[in-house]
Order: sequence, then structure tokens, then C-alpha cells
Amino acid sequence: MVKKETTKITPWEVEGKVDYDKLIRKFGTSPLDQELVKRIERNAGASHLFLRRGIFFSHRDLNLVMDDYENGKGFFLYTGRGPSGPMHIGHIIPFIMTKWFQERFKVNVYIELTDDEKFLNDEKITLDYSRKWSYENALDIIALGFDPDKTFIFQDTDYIKNIYPMAIKVAKKINFSLVKAVFGFRNDTNIGMIFYPAIQIVPTFFEKKRCLIPAAIDQDPYWRIQRDIAEGFGYYKAAAIHNRFLPPLTGLEGKMSASIPETAIYLHDDEKTVRQKIMKYAFSGGQATVELHRKLGGNPDVDVSFQWLKYLFEPDDSKIKKIEEEYRSGNLLTGELKEILIEKINQFLEKHRSEREKAKEKINEFTQNGILAQQMRNNIFE
Amino acid sequence: MVKKETTKITPWEVEGKVDYDKLIRKFGTSPLDQELVKRIERNAGASHLFLRRGIFFSHRDLNLVMDDYENGKGFFLYTGRGPSGPMHIGHIIPFIMTKWFQERFKVNVYIELTDDEKFLNDEKITLDYSRKWSYENALDIIALGFDPDKTFIFQDTDYIKNIYPMAIKVAKKINFSLVKAVFGFRNDTNIGMIFYPAIQIVPTFFEKKRCLIPAAIDQDPYWRIQRDIAEGFGYYKAAAIHNRFLPPLTGLEGKMSASIPETAIYLHDDEKTVRQKIMKYAFSGGQATVELHRKLGGNPDVDVSFQWLKYLFEPDDSKIKKIEEEYRSGNLLTGELKEILIEKINQFLEKHRSEREKAKEKINEFTQNGILAQQMRNNIFE
Repeated sequence: MVKKETTKITPWEVEGKVDYDKLIRKFGTSPLDQELVKRIERNAGASHLFLRRGIFFSHRDLNLVMDDYENGKGFFLYTGRGPSGPMHIGHIIPFIMTKWFQERFKVNVYIELTDDEKFLNDEKITLDYSRKWSYENALDIIALGFDPDKTFIFQDTDYIKNIYPMAIKVAKKINFSLVKAVFGFRNDTNIGMIFYPAIQIVPTFFEKKRCLIPAAIDQDPYWRIQRDIAEGFGYYKAAAIHNRFLPPLTGLEGKMSASIPETAIYLHDDEKTVRQKIMKYAFSGGQATVELHRKLGGNPDVDVSFQWLKYLFEPDDSKIKKIEEEYRSGNLLTGELKEILIEKINQFLEKHRSEREKAKEKINEFTQNGILAQQMRNNIFE
Repeated sequence: MVKKETTKITPWEVEGKVDYDKLIRKFGTSPLDQELVKRIERNAGASHLFLRRGIFFSHRDLNLVMDDYENGKGFFLYTGRGPSGPMHIGHIIPFIMTKWFQERFKVNVYIELTDDEKFLNDEKITLDYSRKWSYENALDIIALGFDPDKTFIFQDTDYIKNIYPMAIKVAKKINFSLVKAVFGFRNDTNIGMIFYPAIQIVPTFFEKKRCLIPAAIDQDPYWRIQRDIAEGFGYYKAAAIHNRFLPPLTGLEGKMSASIPETAIYLHDDEKTVRQKIMKYAFSGGQATVELHRKLGGNPDVDVSFQWLKYLFEPDDSKIKKIEEEYRSGNLLTGELKEILIEKINQFLEKHRSEREKAKEKINEFTQNGILAQQMRNNIFE
């Protein structure tokens, strides 16, 4: 990858090396500190590696979400997916977090598939294409284990009648200057994209409770606008928790890209492909030769295989600590570290494939027939 | 009314004295000449005062619509109403013309009630308000005699699911620069209004035939954009016929305004109100005294009562000619001319009130259950 001097973060692009402290300052969010993590764990009655290892590093109003939970008001979860192609390992981080919050706090989850946005944002993407991927991505999301009676998955073009009245109320509060400033829209931006932020904001008003959005920080511009207007409509400002981007296989810069397949492991990659990609592309923090490695040790901080284990695939703290120490000391070779990761990923993907097959039978519960879905099909938001 | 030096015509405002030849040049449309009128009358097997008296004065591609009719391809009609309040006499001109074309050519009519646009365009208008007026205006429109099996009346926020996919396809072809140039949108225009033109364009694609739009010329900017993109989607460029604005009671400048009640007769005005308004406000081309009038004669060219008879209420050519001659000669006094108009309007409104009551029973045929409406409820346009 070509080294970039600057970092660019919008909902449509991430480039360069990500400085997370800088992002917190830039977006004006709060660091997700250990005190808050402990409070969540206390309420959840459990701990999650994403929280205790700082994979989710930033938040807005998560403390208020915990207040609301503790005093019985409750909250709800909202996240989404831009269905522009197959999902990779990096895409599922917010969904895993969302599912954990649902499970631990017994709350509703709303998942938006933004087929309109992906169509509008890319000259090459047809509406048929973004709809096909809406279905495929929904299967991957359902496979992660959401509660079919507490989760509503909807596709914008299909659910539009229920959200359009509220969307135009939101749109009436937002002018071109604002979306130009917040999203970098220009005079040559199409009028569908210009309107689209209103659509993405509506689900934050699906319940008269605080909405918690687990998502990558690149989605924050939407919530900044939402937070300016929510109270005027009698709703809460959206709360959010932001995860780091899972580093691409090829090194710690940027995020995995669907357009550069060697940077990512896809949820549909078979065992052989996983092995080949990790062996060939996973950037190593090891030394040039086994002798040097034994002598000088590896650097887990830049080693993508280690980072992936830490981010996602090795939840056992004592095990991850041991792997780190062994690698740093030189006892564990890069090839051995990669073998650990390959096995973990392939275990995960094997289960995922099986759950994904079952999801084909269950998808209607999430979109139409489950308790929450039925209720949502009858609601017009305005 | 304050005299304006300039004329301003956008879909949202008409000010000043309207120079129709200038409008034809400005909008780049064609004058609706007598040759074309004769051709329409031949095909229709009938004549309409709006055509032979030049009330519809301009068109786009109406000759091609007649080609399509003559060679059996057919065409369809599309018009609409911005439901921002009660309808007055001036509002029904395009609908009367539309109904006549439907009746004579046996074609489908699509009528859009733009509740979203009216809400988005006016800070004071709520969505509930523009929806209430959608219903009320639909009754007035139905009362004009449309065919319930060939007419589909829809409200944008209600029909949005069926048109949104096509709307975003349209929107993807239109950028902010274009709507800025065409509609005068600015950086402080809200993003709902910026998107809205895409919504209004979709119904021109409801059939794979040429779409004829009877409307005032202020709606032309939408069709200019439509004509730039239609063929790229495999549809026809929209054809249109444009009517003059019915002059306000108070004089020949501008158009009737819902916000200045004395300029207009409303469809709900009772007999007494009609009489009072005409007597008090109808601008007269008569002389200051009866004696002077008998001596010098009146000027029907600036007399609003005469103009209204000519525009709308006296279809008999020999009668309108006689009235004109008598008024010009001074035989017919202003008071007598006003009496003729009052009687005509009250006859029309009496029938209208009775048809409007019946429309309450029939509205579902136009929106849901008629042959065309049923078909449209099952169509998703994309």
C-alpha cells in the first residue's frame, strides 16, 4: 500500500494510518475508559473482549445509556450495513458488539440495510446489486445470533413507506450548507445522496428511549446531525460506541477494503483460501530469519496475525497474554502464530457457514414475522 | 396589489403581470397554434373552449402525442396538486382539461398529491396539514368527473414505497448544480426540497407511452429535467400543455393567491360569498358612471368578470361574442356583466358541491379499488 500522509475519514472512505486519539479529538467524542467499561460489565453481568481490550475506544453518552438502564428507562440498539458486496471479518465487529448488548441487556435491535445509499453513492452499483447484497449480508448478520423476536432487519427501499414521513421532517431541519460541511458534499453530488442522511437518522427515533449505536467512527457525522435535532422532535440524542478498524491483513494502515481482496478475509472464504491469505499476506512483526527471530523476538504491536487474535479471535486473556509474550520473546515463530490464527478463523467460519444456512430459514422472522418485525411493519414513523 | 416591474415564475411563486409570449421564449416551449388545436379537435371528435380560446397557450411535443394517438401507440395523462389549502376556481383549469382529454381519448390519468413538497416548502405547513388537504383536494378533483377505473390519485407519503426506487434512480442523474440552476435552490434550501424533484418526475414513467402533462407553465422546470434524462431510462420525454393563470378577481396581474382570499373564488364559497366577492372585488373595465359607460363603452380586455366568463364559465362562442360586443358598446353595464358571472359560478358550484359529496363515497376507487388504482397498488416502479 502506498503510504498516505493524511488521514481521511468519512462514511465513504478511510485512508492512511488511523490515530485514534486524534479521532476522538476531531469528532469530539469521549474515550471509553476503564471505569465506564467496569460499569457496563457490572450491569451486563459479563465482560466482552471488545470492551476490556479497547477495541471499542470511543463513545458518546454511553454513561447516560447506563444511567437509563440502571433507573429502568431502558435503551435500544441501532446499527446497519451498506450492502455493497460480501462481508469480511472487519464488518462484523459492530454486529458482534450489538448482539452482545442485546443478549446481556435484553433490548431491541434495529439493523438498517442501506441499499439506497450504496446505489446512490457508487456509479457502478445498480439497485438490483445492492438489493441482492442486502439479502446476502442479512444472512451473515443473522448468523451472528441475534434474537429473532427482538431484532428488526430492514432494507431502506422496502421499508421506506414507514420511515419517509419522519425522514422529510428530519430533512426539513437540514440544509445543503450543513451536509456540505459535515459530509463534504459538493455541487456535483447527486440529490439522492444529499437527501440520504435524513433516511439514516430516522431509526434513532424508533423508540422513545435512548438509542445506542455500535459502529465504526466513520458513521459519526450522521449522529452529530441527529444530536443537533433530536430533542426538537422530543427524542433523545443518539448515543454511540465506536470501534477501531480491524487492520487489513497487509499491515496496520487504513481499513480492509472490499476492492482489495488480499487485505481481508471474507465470511465466505473457505479453509484453503483463509490459509493461503494469512500465509501470503498477513503482515508479520517477526524477524527476517528464524535465527534472528529467536534472538531478537517478534513485534506483536505491528503483527497483523497477533492483532486479529487480540481484536477478535482469542477471547481468553491469559492465552492472548501468553501468545504476546512468547512472540515478543522469540519463542513463537511467525508461522506458528499464523497457524493459531488460521485455526481460530476457520473454526469461526465453519460455525458461521452452518448458522448462515439456518439463517435462510429464519430471515423472515427478522424482516416480517418476529414479534418486533411484526410491530415495525405496522408502524409509520412521523 | 403593488405593481411589480419584473415577472417571477417558479413552481412556488408567480408575481407581476404575465407576458405569455415571453414565457414561451423563456421556457423554450412552442405556442399552441390553431393548426394543432384543429388536429386535436379532429381526433377528439369535439372542441374545448380552453383550446379554441387559447387558455392553453403553449406546449411541448403535443404534436408527437397526437402522432402516437393516430398511429395507435396511445398516451397517458399526468397532473397534480400541491395540497397546501382549499382549492379555488383557478386551480381546476388543468384538471378540467385533463378530464376532457381522458374522456375524449379514453386514456389513463395519474394525479399526484404532493403532501411532502408542500410540507417541505413552507415552514408553517405541518405534514398533518398537507395530508388533510390532500384528502379535501382529492374530493374537489374527483367531483370534476374523472373515470374511477382509469384514474389513480395518490399522495406522495402514502405511495412512496412504489415510487422511491425509481426516484433514487432519477436522483442519481441530478446534482445540486442542476437543481440550483433550474429551481433556484440555495445552500440554505432543505435537503428534502433538494431531493423532491426526483419524486415529481417518477410518474412520467408510469407507462411506456408518452406522458402528457396539462399544468400551468410554472411546473415546467420539472419536465425540462425529465426531458433530459427520460430517454436514458428507456422512456419518452414528457409532453405538456400549459394554461394561462386565471386572473385574480382584483385585476389582471399575477395569479390568484390562497393567501389573499379576495383575489379568488373558492370551490367552497357559498352563493352569498360569491356574489359579495364579485360585486366588491371583480376588477371592472367599465366607466366611472352609467352615463359615461353608455357613451364610451366598457373594456372587456381588462374586465375580470368578462375574462372569467371567457376563460371558464361561458363555453358558447356566440354568447361570449355577444357579451363582449354588448359590453364594448356600452349596452351591457358592469353590474349586469357581474350578474351573468355570478349566476354562472353559482350554477357551477352548486353542481360541484353535490358531486363533491358523492366523491366521499367514491374516493377509494381512485386511490385503492378502481381498475387502475388496484393495478398501481401492485406496481413498484424502478
